[in-house]
Amino acid sequence: MNAWPDRRIQELFRIEHPIIQAPMANSALAALAIGAAQGGGLGSLGCASLSPERIREEVAHFREATRQPLNLNFFCHRPPRHDHGRESNWKRLLMPYYDELGLDASAPAPASARSPFDETAAGLVEELRPEIVSFHFGLPDKTLFNRVRASGARIVSSATTVEEARWLEGRGCDAIIAQGAEAGGHRGMFLAQEIAAQVGTMALVPQIVDAVKVPVIAAGGIGDSRGIAAAFALGAAAVQIGTAYLFCPESTISPLHRAALLSAREDQTMLTNIFTGRPARGIANRIVRELGPLSGAVPDFPLAGGMLVPLQKADPARSDFMPLWSGQAARLGRECPAAELTVCLANEALARLSRSFEHEQPDGSPRFGR
Amino acid sequence: MNAWPDRRIQELFRIEHPIIQAPMANSALAALAIGAAQGGGLGSLGCASLSPERIREEVAHFREATRQPLNLNFFCHRPPRHDHGRESNWKRLLMPYYDELGLDASAPAPASARSPFDETAAGLVEELRPEIVSFHFGLPDKTLFNRVRASGARIVSSATTVEEARWLEGRGCDAIIAQGAEAGGHRGMFLAQEIAAQVGTMALVPQIVDAVKVPVIAAGGIGDSRGIAAAFALGAAAVQIGTAYLFCPESTISPLHRAALLSAREDQTMLTNIFTGRPARGIANRIVRELGPLSGAVPDFPLAGGMLVPLQKADPARSDFMPLWSGQAARLGRECPAAELTVCLANEALARLSRSFEHEQPDGSPRFGR
Repeated sequence: MNAWPDRRIQELFRIEHPIIQAPMANSALAALAIGAAQGGGLGSLGCASLSPERIREEVAHFREATRQPLNLNFFCHRPPRHDHGRESNWKRLLMPYYDELGLDASAPAPASARSPFDETAAGLVEELRPEIVSFHFGLPDKTLFNRVRASGARIVSSATTVEEARWLEGRGCDAIIAQGAEAGGHRGMFLAQEIAAQVGTMALVPQIVDAVKVPVIAAGGIGDSRGIAAAFALGAAAVQIGTAYLFCPESTISPLHRAALLSAREDQTMLTNIFTGRPARGIANRIVRELGPLSGAVPDFPLAGGMLVPLQKADPARSDFMPLWSGQAARLGRECPAAELTVCLANEALARLSRSFEHEQPDGSPRFGR
Repeated sequence: MNAWPDRRIQELFRIEHPIIQAPMANSALAALAIGAAQGGGLGSLGCASLSPERIREEVAHFREATRQPLNLNFFCHRPPRHDHGRESNWKRLLMPYYDELGLDASAPAPASARSPFDETAAGLVEELRPEIVSFHFGLPDKTLFNRVRASGARIVSSATTVEEARWLEGRGCDAIIAQGAEAGGHRGMFLAQEIAAQVGTMALVPQIVDAVKVPVIAAGGIGDSRGIAAAFALGAAAVQIGTAYLFCPESTISPLHRAALLSAREDQTMLTNIFTGRPARGIANRIVRELGPLSGAVPDFPLAGGMLVPLQKADPARSDFMPLWSGQAARLGRECPAAELTVCLANEALARLSRSFEHEQPDGSPRFGR
């Protein structure tokens, strides 16, 4: 029995510590999730960029290693509308880079592999029975949602505003991730439109806590146990941590991405739509500075990304054209295995929190000093 | 003796509670500062938009009411360079609004009254002896800084990045305000240039705490006792609160501004340079949406503002053209007098914190249960 001041998420997910390793498409597979789970947190697998076969393999890998629960994360974007004019124009903007690298811009661009949650994915959930399913960019339609519900999975999704949180609660989410603007990777925004009005974690969490009855998971800018303790002070019942897990040897980021994180400053990330067509936070590099950070010319999500793939593959020794996803607290990261990171974060946060909130014990009696 | 877990700012400023009422030029005068001080916090007077005579009057008013310490805040911007082409172009952009309101755009615009800290201001500090002097936009030059230092005042300034915090510490500040992106009003940025890379409070505070030895005051998105407790969890030794104090009857905001705050949502503020030429957070209204939020056409700070004054005065019943400064946590505000607000914030935060951090007591013994 540990002394977390709010145990709702631990009971809902049946996990030891209220720490969720963020699902990070392309940056983390089963190995990272296994580590987080073995440390007592919730391991997550970002499925949006994986084929059904690959998802089966990774889940099997996870199930062999641990009996802890697993979170499968899916994107809920609308499939992109192809717009030939828009896509050609985007390619035209990328042409100077193709020329610089001696690439043939007329070759067909690879498809950008980020699929929305669909019938196939719902079938996978029914087959693989993840204990938790989390969504990004809203929720799937009611039929698909009900299939996930019927599978027995707990369902969560991300909110970037109070309105989004209420919408998610109203449609049956068991918990809500309050994703503050500091968070790395894609903004989960699905009702919100205005990128200039993104809300920081410190302001967002208590306002969402006040607006919904389900437990709230804080995300964004939480890089060590101080952030975890702060999230609980704001009313959150758990945290979701991404960037700090990218430092683990189990993450699948490139050496260039790893090097960029190791020297990242808090003021070098931006929300950019250059890499996929949707705003996402990463370390600003050459292409972000030259075409972004926010471009009105990008094709629909996720089409923008496909045309960048040849640039990324042409010279693996340069990070000019690759997404360097990161939140604003990379400086707080430390290189250690995911299980150890989870245990350290939990123990350090418990040390900060263990004597807090005792006045909220049901019987009113102090736990300390008895 | 109260149980704040870190008493460095209270001892430095000789205040009962580590709560600083943010100086807010044009929105707060001595009455608000008196309330904050009587509640045990630090009252502040934003001097940038006040004449020396008015500063004298307000300080006299404060001194009559209370013997608590006072913070005088000054801006440290470089005086603007007049650029006729730029100013005419800005006026041209405003012309449709002048026409709409039936105003004569050829009449000379009022000057925008925001003076940088200068010889006169240093003389005022020597004369009025505020216990604390806080700066925004960096620090004054060494000669002026030394005059403030010699007056006996504690000196603080705002940092929006780790680099700015180190710069301020290196030049002798006694404490540093870590101003997260959620904060209302002007960004204190003076080395940072990139508005797309502003850092949220949750990420900024611990990184600045790690980088400097002086105590850190957290600001941005802190609207109630949850935010105060969170700030301490992040390593801050005090908080600076602005928007929540605007709800007090003592604030001097217009009825329209007050009404806007009372219905403000967390996702309706933006950083805009429309009103002064420098980025500042306020509730997005018509002119922000139509010309901003960030315009490349604004004249140097603070010249942009003067040309808006006739629009603001023409129809006091509409808020289309006035700055509606607000941070992202306005929804947490409550309408009560400043002394009562300060006491409530302190007591509620103490209740949250009183059993925390006990393991950090010097003698290692618990305070609770004895």
